[in-house]
Amino acid sequence: MSLQPVKIGLLGLGTVGGGTINVLRRNAGEIARRAGRGIVVVSAAARDPGKARSLALDGIRVAGDANAIVADPEVEIVCELIGGIEPARTLVLAAIARGKHVVTANKALIALHGNEIFAAASRKGVMVAFEAAVAGGIPIIKAIREGLSGNRIQTVAGIINGTCNYILTEMRQLGGDFQDVLAEAQRLGYAEADPTTDIDGIDAAHKLTILASIAFGIPLQFDKVYTEGIGRVGVMDIAYAEELGYRIKSLGIARHGGDGIELRVHPTLIPKRHPIAGVEGVMNAVLVVGDAVGPTMFYGRGAGAEPTASAVVSDLVDVVRAMTSDPENRVPHLAFQPDAISNIIVKPMEEVRTAYYLRLSAVDKPGVLANVTAILGSLDISIEAIIQKEPDKNANVVPVIFLTQRVVEKNMNEAISRIEALDSVRGNVFRMRVETLE
Amino acid sequence: MSLQPVKIGLLGLGTVGGGTINVLRRNAGEIARRAGRGIVVVSAAARDPGKARSLALDGIRVAGDANAIVADPEVEIVCELIGGIEPARTLVLAAIARGKHVVTANKALIALHGNEIFAAASRKGVMVAFEAAVAGGIPIIKAIREGLSGNRIQTVAGIINGTCNYILTEMRQLGGDFQDVLAEAQRLGYAEADPTTDIDGIDAAHKLTILASIAFGIPLQFDKVYTEGIGRVGVMDIAYAEELGYRIKSLGIARHGGDGIELRVHPTLIPKRHPIAGVEGVMNAVLVVGDAVGPTMFYGRGAGAEPTASAVVSDLVDVVRAMTSDPENRVPHLAFQPDAISNIIVKPMEEVRTAYYLRLSAVDKPGVLANVTAILGSLDISIEAIIQKEPDKNANVVPVIFLTQRVVEKNMNEAISRIEALDSVRGNVFRMRVETLE
Repeated sequence: MSLQPVKIGLLGLGTVGGGTINVLRRNAGEIARRAGRGIVVVSAAARDPGKARSLALDGIRVAGDANAIVADPEVEIVCELIGGIEPARTLVLAAIARGKHVVTANKALIALHGNEIFAAASRKGVMVAFEAAVAGGIPIIKAIREGLSGNRIQTVAGIINGTCNYILTEMRQLGGDFQDVLAEAQRLGYAEADPTTDIDGIDAAHKLTILASIAFGIPLQFDKVYTEGIGRVGVMDIAYAEELGYRIKSLGIARHGGDGIELRVHPTLIPKRHPIAGVEGVMNAVLVVGDAVGPTMFYGRGAGAEPTASAVVSDLVDVVRAMTSDPENRVPHLAFQPDAISNIIVKPMEEVRTAYYLRLSAVDKPGVLANVTAILGSLDISIEAIIQKEPDKNANVVPVIFLTQRVVEKNMNEAISRIEALDSVRGNVFRMRVETLE
Repeated sequence: MSLQPVKIGLLGLGTVGGGTINVLRRNAGEIARRAGRGIVVVSAAARDPGKARSLALDGIRVAGDANAIVADPEVEIVCELIGGIEPARTLVLAAIARGKHVVTANKALIALHGNEIFAAASRKGVMVAFEAAVAGGIPIIKAIREGLSGNRIQTVAGIINGTCNYILTEMRQLGGDFQDVLAEAQRLGYAEADPTTDIDGIDAAHKLTILASIAFGIPLQFDKVYTEGIGRVGVMDIAYAEELGYRIKSLGIARHGGDGIELRVHPTLIPKRHPIAGVEGVMNAVLVVGDAVGPTMFYGRGAGAEPTASAVVSDLVDVVRAMTSDPENRVPHLAFQPDAISNIIVKPMEEVRTAYYLRLSAVDKPGVLANVTAILGSLDISIEAIIQKEPDKNANVVPVIFLTQRVVEKNMNEAISRIEALDSVRGNVFRMRVETLE
């Protein structure tokens, strides 16, 4: 421990920035015992330096201009905790150009611009570490990229958005409507004032893009992820799913099917007995299935100041250790050697095969079940279960639930449009996908 | 990928050895895409080379003498998959002395002789990797040592013996007695012909020794682990625990209490709603609580040819990557720098505080509850719950269950000996510890 501490420049003094400073200080002794040298933040940039004064920043130079941190010759590692695309992208590329290593928690940046950033980093022989970009404190990037490197990864399926999981958990446990639970989540700070990125599945799609790339050795391709939010899931759907032995979770699913990759984020029915079904509230978990290891699962807090800082600091320790190593022999940014990235296709959603949950509003007259089952049968869709509730005395429609076996999505699309055209069916069919995760 | 493949010498062609050869071959392309070069087994030693011929060993020289593999100048990494202490210890030290890196799945060897082996490896600047020694395919060594390196680890608690978990799961689900379920487990290959190491908690204590060392930066000290097997857990205990809202699991628990470390393996009541309570059958899971990350859990198969091979191969990839790096900057074998290992004491079991489950056989006469509660009260032991069943018409004793709040073990020992001395109590008190794992 005779070496000088490594000097960090920190961009962004928000929740994660503050958490990172706290963890680095509180655990300075423990971190140095592991890394063999200290890791200290020497300078930090905040949009509003005055506001940042509430943090214990003694010994840290605070600047309003992030470019000054990136240009500071004393800074060896730039820690980007601003979030969003710009100015984060420009700052990260500038740090790389100056030969500095980068640690980032920025999932949108990596998902959308990672290919460009990692290529620039490889040219300069520097590292860009991003454990904190996926599932907060869970070391899932390291687990897939290094801990399971002997496997052909078959499936990655994760609860990777705490806001969605909190909302679905509360809807099930308290029976509240989506809008009411969302408002409560916003009040508690579990959902943003503008919750679109979370509830529409975009945040999960960013993370899934990254997980799929390191699992399968494919480029980052966010634009290929099929994304569906949780806004249409009703309290009654949660109850019907329970009755059928399933729980509804918003999952990010990446599967290697041999002939192509599936990349999709959507509300999903999973068997209640599966370990991932028990992951509640804001907790995250990622199931990874490898051909040798079988099923594995990684569970923990997916957000928050200190869980995210845990990942940022472990990345800092990794970078400090590997700074003196030959760049050629470091763990590749996306797990696979840059010249070994596969161009296997991502399947369009209509080519994906899953089982389905269908809810439709039927005019309660004899023959409606026969009509629907005839349509499903004509498209080779087998029915696994049907729930038909007794109609309310005052209602002239009754909800009918179908659980089907696996079928290719384009056939299901055809079935749904034919069902919606039936006189005996009112409004749209609501469809969710069902996964056994086996 | 223009580099020559790395050449492996494999000691032991049993279950894990065979699995490792299969995984390295089946996933050769995938592994080379990650590692940047191939990894091939060039020679292997088997106690019975004739028997090993059933494996697909084309291109692998098979020797009866493991020393020949260790001495082979072509071999760069020795993979020790023999198990047990000797000759594994001598062979590993010989490989290190020749400047070869070592990958091992041998938990007993690391737990008992790791301090010596890692010191020898550090002197020679070689790596000894041992991910496969704990929890099979779950990358738990990497998660604690690298993925959570920013944390002060507070607790590690794991289901780290599949045999015990299988037996306890079957006892609960089928209501079978310990001996019957053990016999069935032996028939299915989930328990050894001599099951002592597993059911007495010794195997779990080996693994816990390793986990505690890398979590807290303490030496490997197997002799300090308190170990209690599952042989005395009755079917009725499982039912009473369920009634009280708990599930019984054999846990390895390592806790940093500030004033000392707890190291213990014993059957434990844990809340049914805790995620680790749902880990069933032969599956393993390890809960790790860090001060920054909070609770995390790592789940997967803890044994078997391919899950263990998954860990062996990921270690091989790690070693191949780090072979060219400066030994000073590699991840330390036990997570902390050798000069930063702490000599904090391991608490004797009688100093550990836990809550307790007590089952006693009471002569069913008025006053027995009063006597027992008076003893507990006189030792400041608060009672959380009592179950007293209606006596059988033919039985002259009735089981009474007490759940207590947390108390230091020596007080509980005193209470138990006083309770056993009561006229109204027959035989011994059966005691298990209760953990909320919060």
